[in-house]
Amino acid sequence: MIHRKLATAVLLALTFGLGSLKLHADEGMWLFTDLPSDQLKSRYGFTMTDEWAQHVMLSSVRFNSGGSASFVSSTGLVLTNHHVASDTLQKLSTPEHNYIEDGFYAPTHAEEVAAPDLELNQLVSIEDVTAQVNAAVPAGASVAEAAKARRAVMSEIEQKSLDATGFRSDVVTLFGGAKYHLYRYKKYTDVRLVWAPETKAAFFGGDADNFEYPRYCLDVTLFRVYEDGKPAKIDHFLKFDEAGVQDGDLVFVSGNPGRTQRIFTLDALKYLRDHRLPYVLDYLRRLEVLMQQYSYEGEEQKRRARNLQFGIQNSRKAYTGMIQGLQNPSFLEKKAKDEAALLKQIKASPELKDYASAWDEVAAVQKEKALLLGQSASFGRISDLYHIAETLVHMAAEDKKPSEERMREYRDSARESLEQALYSPAPIYPDFETVLLADQLALFSEKRGGDDPLVQKVLAGKSPLDRAAELVQGSQLIDIDQRKKMAANPALHEDDPLMQLVKILEPEFRRLHELSEELDERERQAYARITEAVVAIQGTNTYPDATFTLRLAYGSVKGYEEAGQTVAPFTNMGGAFDHEAAHNSELDWKLPQSWHDHKADIALDTRLNFVSTCDIIGGNSGSPVINAKGELVGIIFDGNIQSLTGDFFYSDTQSRAVSVHAHAVREALKSIYGAGSLANELGK
Amino acid sequence: MIHRKLATAVLLALTFGLGSLKLHADEGMWLFTDLPSDQLKSRYGFTMTDEWAQHVMLSSVRFNSGGSASFVSSTGLVLTNHHVASDTLQKLSTPEHNYIEDGFYAPTHAEEVAAPDLELNQLVSIEDVTAQVNAAVPAGASVAEAAKARRAVMSEIEQKSLDATGFRSDVVTLFGGAKYHLYRYKKYTDVRLVWAPETKAAFFGGDADNFEYPRYCLDVTLFRVYEDGKPAKIDHFLKFDEAGVQDGDLVFVSGNPGRTQRIFTLDALKYLRDHRLPYVLDYLRRLEVLMQQYSYEGEEQKRRARNLQFGIQNSRKAYTGMIQGLQNPSFLEKKAKDEAALLKQIKASPELKDYASAWDEVAAVQKEKALLLGQSASFGRISDLYHIAETLVHMAAEDKKPSEERMREYRDSARESLEQALYSPAPIYPDFETVLLADQLALFSEKRGGDDPLVQKVLAGKSPLDRAAELVQGSQLIDIDQRKKMAANPALHEDDPLMQLVKILEPEFRRLHELSEELDERERQAYARITEAVVAIQGTNTYPDATFTLRLAYGSVKGYEEAGQTVAPFTNMGGAFDHEAAHNSELDWKLPQSWHDHKADIALDTRLNFVSTCDIIGGNSGSPVINAKGELVGIIFDGNIQSLTGDFFYSDTQSRAVSVHAHAVREALKSIYGAGSLANELGK
Repeated sequence: MIHRKLATAVLLALTFGLGSLKLHADEGMWLFTDLPSDQLKSRYGFTMTDEWAQHVMLSSVRFNSGGSASFVSSTGLVLTNHHVASDTLQKLSTPEHNYIEDGFYAPTHAEEVAAPDLELNQLVSIEDVTAQVNAAVPAGASVAEAAKARRAVMSEIEQKSLDATGFRSDVVTLFGGAKYHLYRYKKYTDVRLVWAPETKAAFFGGDADNFEYPRYCLDVTLFRVYEDGKPAKIDHFLKFDEAGVQDGDLVFVSGNPGRTQRIFTLDALKYLRDHRLPYVLDYLRRLEVLMQQYSYEGEEQKRRARNLQFGIQNSRKAYTGMIQGLQNPSFLEKKAKDEAALLKQIKASPELKDYASAWDEVAAVQKEKALLLGQSASFGRISDLYHIAETLVHMAAEDKKPSEERMREYRDSARESLEQALYSPAPIYPDFETVLLADQLALFSEKRGGDDPLVQKVLAGKSPLDRAAELVQGSQLIDIDQRKKMAANPALHEDDPLMQLVKILEPEFRRLHELSEELDERERQAYARITEAVVAIQGTNTYPDATFTLRLAYGSVKGYEEAGQTVAPFTNMGGAFDHEAAHNSELDWKLPQSWHDHKADIALDTRLNFVSTCDIIGGNSGSPVINAKGELVGIIFDGNIQSLTGDFFYSDTQSRAVSVHAHAVREALKSIYGAGSLANELGK
Repeated sequence: MIHRKLATAVLLALTFGLGSLKLHADEGMWLFTDLPSDQLKSRYGFTMTDEWAQHVMLSSVRFNSGGSASFVSSTGLVLTNHHVASDTLQKLSTPEHNYIEDGFYAPTHAEEVAAPDLELNQLVSIEDVTAQVNAAVPAGASVAEAAKARRAVMSEIEQKSLDATGFRSDVVTLFGGAKYHLYRYKKYTDVRLVWAPETKAAFFGGDADNFEYPRYCLDVTLFRVYEDGKPAKIDHFLKFDEAGVQDGDLVFVSGNPGRTQRIFTLDALKYLRDHRLPYVLDYLRRLEVLMQQYSYEGEEQKRRARNLQFGIQNSRKAYTGMIQGLQNPSFLEKKAKDEAALLKQIKASPELKDYASAWDEVAAVQKEKALLLGQSASFGRISDLYHIAETLVHMAAEDKKPSEERMREYRDSARESLEQALYSPAPIYPDFETVLLADQLALFSEKRGGDDPLVQKVLAGKSPLDRAAELVQGSQLIDIDQRKKMAANPALHEDDPLMQLVKILEPEFRRLHELSEELDERERQAYARITEAVVAIQGTNTYPDATFTLRLAYGSVKGYEEAGQTVAPFTNMGGAFDHEAAHNSELDWKLPQSWHDHKADIALDTRLNFVSTCDIIGGNSGSPVINAKGELVGIIFDGNIQSLTGDFFYSDTQSRAVSVHAHAVREALKSIYGAGSLANELGK
């Protein structure tokens, strides 16, 4: 699975850049404002119309929690991945009703359950605001001044747009700062769960099969958006491809790839290879083992840890694939050769030769980032309770400033989304929070050393576990009303030990945050210059690095060769039973009881999963796969292991996007889940 | 479980030091040459006779692979832990016969199976050679010269003793170099497996229950030693305590604690807390996840990985307990206070005040160790095949020098033991070796950076996985005859890619080895001075830090308080079934089928496990627990979670040694395993 969420939590924002300009085959995560009409015409004979593109854009949905989806009925049905929905399924579950394991089905609207904190975004318009942003940065501004000016003008543009249109308005930095676009979204916040299969069906084969192919997963879930307490009336939704997609067919993916790093210089990739990824992997393995130990404590603990555990394992496997790619000398040799050739051209040009220093600047920034790596005075988002405390404390401090001078997440135009997360009624389990926070405290001690004065202040003379227990037990933030009171009256922060902890950390947090912001700005400026130089040499007909905004990818349904074997593009539902038998129903190779109970009812030749050459990455999870007629043919849920270097480069040799076939969704609803009427609603 | 082996492989040798001299209650791992007769007399009214001690010493057995045991019959039966035997059980297993999972029983001598590479040691004499060792170090020798001279004289003493007596002869450094003793061992190398229970019985509750109490594990295995092809005739063996040990009884543990660090200065403990343990834990978690991923590939892979996986999980849990202790500020505060008081006394004494600089020297060494941490040009013992290649290459180089100038493991007097390991017929699985070696190559790249010339030479332009596959496939070292040929003719090393790899690494390996040896020697000299100062102030009536040599601990059978509850000292066999039911037979809480089949036959009130206050540590696994009459009452197999800080200090408040009750062994043999005649042989 390629859910974006955890990746974002773990990796600090690395979101800028531009795609390599020497495009390979079906490469590209294209802006809807600059679609690759010529390539589609010449390679596939497909004529892209504005109506087609507009329809696809408006049918696409972003899960603001990290993931993609589409409208699939006029009645507000939204189709995404089970693993995108799992955060919500986890939050809706109780010891009595484990929706994440057992699935869910609401036969009537009345039985649909409201998600506690989902925000779904439908992109409705895109506006180029590059000139406005650049005009706000005074000539000769220092790095810090430029960053501040840019942040301020972006905030201002967003606020103005929000006031004028009522739409969520985000200024997006593209091409590493060469372009700025204003994206406006219609927001849906009344989102209700309609149907989810069991994890055994959605994630059949578990961690072992994850990022592998062939696969046999029904990794889908249906939500419904409501407006004014009624199912929303949706004008643009995807119809179902009745014929079924075939080998070789042209397909499109419309979704929100989270982050790619294809513009990265050789030095930036080496920083990832030698510093950042080893660090992140150590951290993920630490959490993975922690979750395993916690899960041992019993069935209920296992349930509580499940969603986080899945996310961790998924990220660990993804990053392992990435570092394996980077550790292959032949991969970086190619990058080195291309970069050297480009730099040679640049240095040979009187107009461009000054741009070469941008590569040196990136290299210099990597060195400083390596020194900063692992330094943190925040315990992040792993503990919900800590994250709430941190948000409240920082919000109180930021709100004293004008909106445009605040840290981006605290600006006025983003407040509604922030509050939805902050006041989420999702359950918080004190024992689980204690385990997570204790580990963060221990890590803090390890990274700074136990003698560090801040560590000693944070631990207050206690062991990490005792201190975490005391903080969690003493905090009132489990109570949503308390959170609201604390937000309204910062004087109350004195009474909460967890908020006092955040306050102890705050000066160091801000020091590190500023250092990191400055490095980001320096890098942004360097990449903007690199982009200018590259564009001067190679032209602009390309796509920017992914930014968790809507993109269109294209490709064809196509198998591949692996270890001398041909991997066929399609699997079918009967194959899932064979796959289970081949693994003796062991570990996670157990189909749910419902599949066995209804085996005789299932049309076993219904296609279940398929692969295509579309260029996707984490964040694309749940993206609709669409045929030339604009109909739904599948739902992206994974990339194969060879695609994990997609962060850095695209290849169509073996890299494949993995989708659930649309027909399997309907067949499963009808034949396994007793949800025929829901199946009939799809596409209508 | 507290098996020493993995700990040794992972942690570089840290074996020196001296016990804290302010003894707590039942503290101490006593030398058989200096037993705590006075304490035993005053605290327990027990009179220790030379005969008693001699009998216990000669009845004790060391598993040279890492672990302890005892002779339990005149017919050569040796009783140890299942988890000490598991290395052998793993090596004897095949896809068809999985002795580690399914257990083993040889009803006749003819059916007993020879262990491929076990060496068992019976300590027969101890001689103080301190004067001889010290005399060999010239006055005014540099650190390096002193180390060399000491190594040389130790080798010489060992070789002379071996020649004179035929016994394995090891000079052991005690009290951080304040004393040197020559230990002579009778070696048994024809060791055959007689009986082992299923892992489900031996390690009931798995990783989750490990280091917890109450426990319900039959963690025992029986071997038999042979001489001249016949069961050895054993004069000193332990009889069984027929009455059964009771709450409050005085008990002794005679075994080989591997390593303690109780002499460590505050700075040395901080180095562990902030540097070494975080590093080791990252490494262990890395291997743990790797083994889990490999095990997913199938039942046979799971079987191949099992023993290593257990060892890794065990070490990870043990080190987690240790670091948790060190991260508790109150723990180090106490140490700091004691050390400050001691230093004050030393500085106030005109004769002793120069000794204070030894603490500074230890601190200086820790700083250099932190810089060296993670630097390695060896892929260690994780891959058997690599370890064989490395041994052969280093042996060829070392053998050009006189025995006393070689690295310790290559001296002539140790050659027989080295060759037994080197030519072991234990199975080696190319796919498993490839996975292990690939991960070591990746780690090497991460630690040194992918641009490091040595990394590039080692990877030879390939990804870690491709390179590892090439090395393993190209090597002939799976074949024992090839190993012998390579040992006999170093010119053949040219033909083996794995040995070529070792050769590429060798100069850097030797550079780092020398650096590390010098730091060790500086630390040894500093601790020797610290010991002198401490002895001058507090006297000598104490025990040295553990050195994986025979020690006697004592204490009483005693429960403890935990989280407000009283934990009773005994569990019984019926309790194992209750424990299984309480966990719904989930995960590793599944008793084997044999226990269920014979439930009606078992005397369910037979005591199964018990705890005592004896001072033990990793390496003590399998140690006999003995009553005042010198009879066997139990077999050590674990410490509780509170005992994991035992490396650094002893406490009898909650720390407990966990044993299998001797009666459970006999009851299980008779009532579950159909081995009544074997049960009757025990103690006779």
